Amino acid sequence: MRNIKLVLEYDGSDFYGFQRQPHHPSIQSELEKALSRLFDREVKISAASGRTDTGVHALGQVVNFKINHSMSIQKIQRALNALLPKAVAVRSIAEVSVDFHARFSVKKKCYEYRIWNGRERSPLFSRQSWHVREPLDIRKMKAAAKCLAGRHDFKSFCTNNGLPEKAGKKGTVRTLHRLRMSKEKNVITITFEGDGFLYRMVRNLTGVLVEAGKGKLGPKEVKSILSAKDRRRSVMAAPAEGLFLKSVTY
Amino acid sequence: MRNIKLVLEYDGSDFYGFQRQPHHPSIQSELEKALSRLFDREVKISAASGRTDTGVHALGQVVNFKINHSMSIQKIQRALNALLPKAVAVRSIAEVSVDFHARFSVKKKCYEYRIWNGRERSPLFSRQSWHVREPLDIRKMKAAAKCLAGRHDFKSFCTNNGLPEKAGKKGTVRTLHRLRMSKEKNVITITFEGDGFLYRMVRNLTGVLVEAGKGKLGPKEVKSILSAKDRRRSVMAAPAEGLFLKSVTY
Repeated sequence: MRNIKLVLEYDGSDFYGFQRQPHHPSIQSELEKALSRLFDREVKISAASGRTDTGVHALGQVVNFKINHSMSIQKIQRALNALLPKAVAVRSIAEVSVDFHARFSVKKKCYEYRIWNGRERSPLFSRQSWHVREPLDIRKMKAAAKCLAGRHDFKSFCTNNGLPEKAGKKGTVRTLHRLRMSKEKNVITITFEGDGFLYRMVRNLTGVLVEAGKGKLGPKEVKSILSAKDRRRSVMAAPAEGLFLKSVTY
Repeated sequence: MRNIKLVLEYDGSDFYGFQRQPHHPSIQSELEKALSRLFDREVKISAASGRTDTGVHALGQVVNFKINHSMSIQKIQRALNALLPKAVAVRSIAEVSVDFHARFSVKKKCYEYRIWNGRERSPLFSRQSWHVREPLDIRKMKAAAKCLAGRHDFKSFCTNNGLPEKAGKKGTVRTLHRLRMSKEKNVITITFEGDGFLYRMVRNLTGVLVEAGKGKLGPKEVKSILSAKDRRRSVMAAPAEGLFLKSVTY
């Protein structure tokens, strides 16, 4: 059995998230359909981030699948990119050791969130960003980010509020190695790098950073949201369309 | 009568070009529909580039319309952006003198063409670029560009081959003030600045620059295409999806 790793790029706008679903288009079902057609047998994949929401994009989602077939990896990539819809593509491909698992072998993940900060909408950017009208002060956002980076219990930023059956054995403690942001003209990009992320954690953190940028939450309030360990103490999540799974490290 | 100038941004992917058409969605008809609804009367616009093709985008298309109404320009902009589809927006608005005409008053126009140069497609960039698989040598493209910049008869780059009824009184001589290109990772951006452009001229020039980048046309061949003054001597036009009307100077 060969174990094949794929790095995927996709525009999530027209999909109901990554995970296979009975009656809606998803990235997983498009990919498994293409693989099953290519190898003329049922193929199942595992993904680094299988639970991403409707509308979330990826620059570097990682999946793997096992196959007993001699086709070269170059040929597999080329064939998949011909079979997949325009919104999904295999950016790179590699043959990996049998014990590699796209989900369980993850060491670090990197997400990116893009904001269009301007009074009027930007049609050319709207599919891939959150439009925030009110001017954001990036220095205030950076001050808030300082309170959030590091190892913390992120229960306040987990949409299912850390229910044991969802949060799993690890609980709700995670390490956010890096939380950086930059502004170029109207675009603010926030980068999150961590050992793992709770459900909707990036969107929930972004919601708080944007409120901080508007001057509505200071570092003191951000710290108190974090230490409350209660999702109800935080603010609304940022919408899915600005979120990108950027890369996964193994 | 007040004369109002609008600067528009749009994603042209889902429109049949700019110009009003009887049975297909166009930017002009969406805009005139919104204006007519806003002012409760028929409103007609003039545009800097009215003949742009299906799929062409704009960062700064300019239009104007005349209206006898006291509504503030801020309110007009806000209302239009609420009425227009997501793919179109008014980026800025100004009240101008009555003799301003979006088309006839043009001094300079600037177009941008974006190429995704990589072996595999990029789903997040594909709506707004041309995917060229073969590696392009940007130095070769720049060498070809040197032969094309300046004042020339661009008949070889005009798709209707300069038929008098289309080319108009000015004939097919135009000045290309600037033709620049830059590369950042996989994206090549070509910028064209000129006093006017023939029908499909930017796409036809891009087609030649890409062949030059592949090493298939040298400066000598490019010069001979230009001096032939015959569209049939040139190469295929680049597709519409990579083209942006960037700005118009008056």
